[in-house]
Amino acid sequence: MYSLKNDYSEGAHPRILETLLKTNLEQSTGYGEDSYSNEAKIFIRNRLGDENVDIHFISGGTQTNLTAIAAFLRPYEAAIAANTGHILVHETGAIEATGHKVISVPSIDGKLKREDILKVLNEHTDEHMVKPKLVYISNSTEVGTIYYKKELEDLSKVCRENDLLLFMDGARLGSALCSKGNDLKLSDFSELTDAFYIGGTKNGAFMGEALVICNNSLKKDFRFHIKQRGAMIAKGRFLGIQFLELFRDDLFFELAENANKMADILREGIKKLGYSFLVDSPSNQLFPVFPNSVVERLQEKYSFNIQEKIGDNNTSIRLVTSWATKEEDVVKFVEDLKNI
Amino acid sequence: MYSLKNDYSEGAHPRILETLLKTNLEQSTGYGEDSYSNEAKIFIRNRLGDENVDIHFISGGTQTNLTAIAAFLRPYEAAIAANTGHILVHETGAIEATGHKVISVPSIDGKLKREDILKVLNEHTDEHMVKPKLVYISNSTEVGTIYYKKELEDLSKVCRENDLLLFMDGARLGSALCSKGNDLKLSDFSELTDAFYIGGTKNGAFMGEALVICNNSLKKDFRFHIKQRGAMIAKGRFLGIQFLELFRDDLFFELAENANKMADILREGIKKLGYSFLVDSPSNQLFPVFPNSVVERLQEKYSFNIQEKIGDNNTSIRLVTSWATKEEDVVKFVEDLKNI
Amino acid sequence: MYSLKNDYSEGAHPRILETLLKTNLEQSTGYGEDSYSNEAKIFIRNRLGDENVDIHFISGGTQTNLTAIAAFLRPYEAAIAANTGHILVHETGAIEATGHKVISVPSIDGKLKREDILKVLNEHTDEHMVKPKLVYISNSTEVGTIYYKKELEDLSKVCRENDLLLFMDGARLGSALCSKGNDLKLSDFSELTDAFYIGGTKNGAFMGEALVICNNSLKKDFRFHIKQRGAMIAKGRFLGIQFLELFRDDLFFELAENANKMADILREGIKKLGYSFLVDSPSNQLFPVFPNSVVERLQEKYSFNIQEKIGDNNTSIRLVTSWATKEEDVVKFVEDLKNI
Amino acid sequence: MYSLKNDYSEGAHPRILETLLKTNLEQSTGYGEDSYSNEAKIFIRNRLGDENVDIHFISGGTQTNLTAIAAFLRPYEAAIAANTGHILVHETGAIEATGHKVISVPSIDGKLKREDILKVLNEHTDEHMVKPKLVYISNSTEVGTIYYKKELEDLSKVCRENDLLLFMDGARLGSALCSKGNDLKLSDFSELTDAFYIGGTKNGAFMGEALVICNNSLKKDFRFHIKQRGAMIAKGRFLGIQFLELFRDDLFFELAENANKMADILREGIKKLGYSFLVDSPSNQLFPVFPNSVVERLQEKYSFNIQEKIGDNNTSIRLVTSWATKEEDVVKFVEDLKNI
Repeated sequence: MYSLKNDYSEGAHPRILETLLKTNLEQSTGYGEDSYSNEAKIFIRNRLGDENVDIHFISGGTQTNLTAIAAFLRPYEAAIAANTGHILVHETGAIEATGHKVISVPSIDGKLKREDILKVLNEHTDEHMVKPKLVYISNSTEVGTIYYKKELEDLSKVCRENDLLLFMDGARLGSALCSKGNDLKLSDFSELTDAFYIGGTKNGAFMGEALVICNNSLKKDFRFHIKQRGAMIAKGRFLGIQFLELFRDDLFFELAENANKMADILREGIKKLGYSFLVDSPSNQLFPVFPNSVVERLQEKYSFNIQEKIGDNNTSIRLVTSWATKEEDVVKFVEDLKNI
Repeated sequence: MYSLKNDYSEGAHPRILETLLKTNLEQSTGYGEDSYSNEAKIFIRNRLGDENVDIHFISGGTQTNLTAIAAFLRPYEAAIAANTGHILVHETGAIEATGHKVISVPSIDGKLKREDILKVLNEHTDEHMVKPKLVYISNSTEVGTIYYKKELEDLSKVCRENDLLLFMDGARLGSALCSKGNDLKLSDFSELTDAFYIGGTKNGAFMGEALVICNNSLKKDFRFHIKQRGAMIAKGRFLGIQFLELFRDDLFFELAENANKMADILREGIKKLGYSFLVDSPSNQLFPVFPNSVVERLQEKYSFNIQEKIGDNNTSIRLVTSWATKEEDVVKFVEDLKNI
Repeated sequence: MYSLKNDYSEGAHPRILETLLKTNLEQSTGYGEDSYSNEAKIFIRNRLGDENVDIHFISGGTQTNLTAIAAFLRPYEAAIAANTGHILVHETGAIEATGHKVISVPSIDGKLKREDILKVLNEHTDEHMVKPKLVYISNSTEVGTIYYKKELEDLSKVCRENDLLLFMDGARLGSALCSKGNDLKLSDFSELTDAFYIGGTKNGAFMGEALVICNNSLKKDFRFHIKQRGAMIAKGRFLGIQFLELFRDDLFFELAENANKMADILREGIKKLGYSFLVDSPSNQLFPVFPNSVVERLQEKYSFNIQEKIGDNNTSIRLVTSWATKEEDVVKFVEDLKNI
Repeated sequence: MYSLKNDYSEGAHPRILETLLKTNLEQSTGYGEDSYSNEAKIFIRNRLGDENVDIHFISGGTQTNLTAIAAFLRPYEAAIAANTGHILVHETGAIEATGHKVISVPSIDGKLKREDILKVLNEHTDEHMVKPKLVYISNSTEVGTIYYKKELEDLSKVCRENDLLLFMDGARLGSALCSKGNDLKLSDFSELTDAFYIGGTKNGAFMGEALVICNNSLKKDFRFHIKQRGAMIAKGRFLGIQFLELFRDDLFFELAENANKMADILREGIKKLGYSFLVDSPSNQLFPVFPNSVVERLQEKYSFNIQEKIGDNNTSIRLVTSWATKEEDVVKFVEDLKNI
């Protein structure tokens, strides 16, 4: 049984393991104040071309989202998210557990637009309603789509004009940046958002997200929030070393490129066989639509998630590739599909 | 500069790294439902001699404490802790951030006693006050002392008689169990507490605590709590594999024994030189009292925490040994102390 | 300027003031444990035909909702509400501030149906999502509609079959029970819901809602929740006396009947003039649709809320009558409308 | 059975009832934006000699405390309170339920001093601990003592020097201001604190506290907090009218003076009979110490709270007078005591 269920089925990129091994018995300062973490931050800041951002390594996406959003909002302020948004659907109400409402905006392609934001603002008029304050987006989105530069600029503008914070969940930012058609680069995010994170867990690390805080007003005392939410790792070096390896050179991007290339093979192969897709996604998540009987046959050899039933006879499934996916396996999938 | 600051200065025990490497490219189920985690739980259950406990691997101590305590209490219920308790002092109000008060009980030796509990109960009489519901203890405690069987039995009894839950923070449980004079074994805790955790971070793992839920009424839906608090790791195997190595054989105990043995060398050496201790601790944390001038000299070659000023001229410092501490280093410390 | 903006523009029914005056200098026990409150509870229990319910008087609707819902749910559990629901829209995220998500269900008529509930349950499948646990309904709803017996029985059934709690916001329960076509009586609610409240604020009291807890498992320690949320009034008699007057005889129903009768005059008058309504509501809230120019003219003499723009030329407004609305005033409104 | 248990045993001052009656059928704007509330605020601002403060009427003390403190703090920030403080002891963890720790400071006389604050600051050094941010004091305190001008100035100074907020619970502020020896006037509080409240519930109102926010940085969006915590009363006029009557002339102070005068009679009478007091309190709460047998005899005719057992044979009780206490009743108490 081969899994295309997600991008965290395997461990970490071997180079990460090597460095963990090499540095293993050195002593280092705890809680993320070690030299590896500091060095990793320098590499990332260099990539961003911005010396002023604050960077914090946190062990997972939900934890990063809840720690950051709860830190950035006052009690009556709310986040706005697409109805596909991870914080709305797949985090067990983690944001609400910190006291904040997440306002849901219907979205087919998983993205938020200027008009969505304005509509929410128009509907929230007084103190009997929450005050929308933070716009949460994911890039790539939960349905595999990506933001283009013009779209992100528009969102950033509407946020700044309306005293809203723009926060980007980058659990799959690597894949977004390496997608065909992508016209954004890492340094754009520190200009256009107030905070965002660079996902390590889904791009070759054992775990770890690099939260980048760009807006000065959000930086103060952030380590208190990390500690209070249980997100401060004693052996912080463990996260630092991983990001050090990912950003010391181009490893982070090479891994994402592999994921995308494997997705390309799947996408082209599936298209060629005449199947359609629920949504047109250029990144490492694909949502092909198959007859139910085909899905059943595929399930005999592959594990993947069901995305959605399409009428009585068809089903959209989710296929995810990663840094660890091998060409032979996706080629085999296409062949198996052909033979069904 | 050699660090005796804590038991998380080094990485993980080499055997853990080997197994991570060996299993690295295998695919596994996410979120802690992988086969490594399941196997690790079997080994731990066998040690406990209890097939019925639920076990969850969580990445750190604060996160385990806040997830468990918030899960176990209703909104108006409170925890009771010694005034040295980690949740009271060193977790940035993590428990309060989940809505619960922690009632502080003065304690010299870091332990709670039957009478402490009864006193708190007597003072909380009606709905204008929180309702004490959970007793939080640490073993070993934050000042290095350990609970003896009779003490734990007494606490357990007073809890059960008064409808209180007994929760034990075992961040340094390994060291406690291997301390001279200890008469408790791992299986006692599943009998005498409602939940406790076995600390990996401070005993040879990169990170990870094994939360053991013994009381049936606390087990339901616990994974929802883990996810909601951001504590569910995508590559859950990473925690599972570490506990698998620690409990596959006696590694967990061997590592704790090393820590204690190194502490013994320090303790004896310091005693022999005529210095006293703030508290008499049989585990891997020592609190010797030195003249300020001695402390300053030591700080030139060693890093450690200041515990407490003792009058104008003396200072108690905290020395912590670990699985990774080497005999030559503690012998050297004693020599250096002698030469001051 | 005459206000049809809401049902809390005037003070309290004069009989309430008389009794407050009469009992004013008597001493009574604090925090709702006084004899007036106890007597009021007996009258309400008699009306409900149920000796076993617990009753608590709380000063307002939002406070009752947040105190009850937070008390009834565990941290990861969520409420389900129609998208018109007061807790979703008009309580500034009060439920989320206690840590709980409110799941929104689209509804035209403000009511929830069996299928709505089942759909939500089907979508919430595992620990990565909140667990739906409580169904929140309002009767009358926020758009003036009411539940009929068959509908409430169906909802109650689907809740019990799926281990869900049914909670009813009765801020305008008086008007619902006195609406034409209503086939529910007060005693039905203690049978069909797990908890509900009887609204005083919008039916003749200065303030006050009577929360009725029917389900035994929800009763324990409820006064702790009330105190913790700041909802326990020192001079609890003030709430008790009001409910005592409302339920000592039929005053509660007489007041609601006046509100409904005044709404009937408005409804019939507006209909006769050929105007339509956004929603067909039999209770004390009406949502007529007028050309914008008519709305502007009405605003010169009357205050009311705008409900919704209907295309470019029309607007639906909300008209609310109350126990204090006089026949001459609503007759005058219809005349004024006719003359526009 | 005559009650000296508290200062909220009776209803409201008759003049309040009269005005409620007189204005009862007028229509007014909801949620505290009515003309009565506005007028009341003008009277209070005039008393304070400060046009710039924001004033909000909230129905009770716990609710005012929790709404204000939660609004003023970021998640990891904590309040400091004397160990007698109402928020620490008698509010069922209401502050913690909003996510904030309350740091307890031992205090015999219920007051905080400059050194107490500095000690807490010294102990809270980094992000592993909460950050002390708000100093909570009560005046008069929970043990009946009052702050003198020099003391309040010192506290205010240490707060401003250390970026701490000073918040004063004035549930019994009337009695404090009318105490013998008091040298503070209402206008001092808007100068020396960041926010405080003037208690109505315990000084002649049915309910209501006037929260005064002096520090500009705390004013923004405060009505959102009030609504979110369930503290926004629909018929806000009900609170406004009460404060209007209390502050239209000197009624607020006259009522407090009566309470104090009655306490004076009790205090002098008890002293004359040779009894001592647990604490020397100049306001409307007294804590005489009686032999247990005397307490038992008093309990036959009077209700009051037990404050503390003093050894095996004596007990300190709490006697509270109010605006409604009559001279004949306290004279009778002293006589009865004499006859025991």
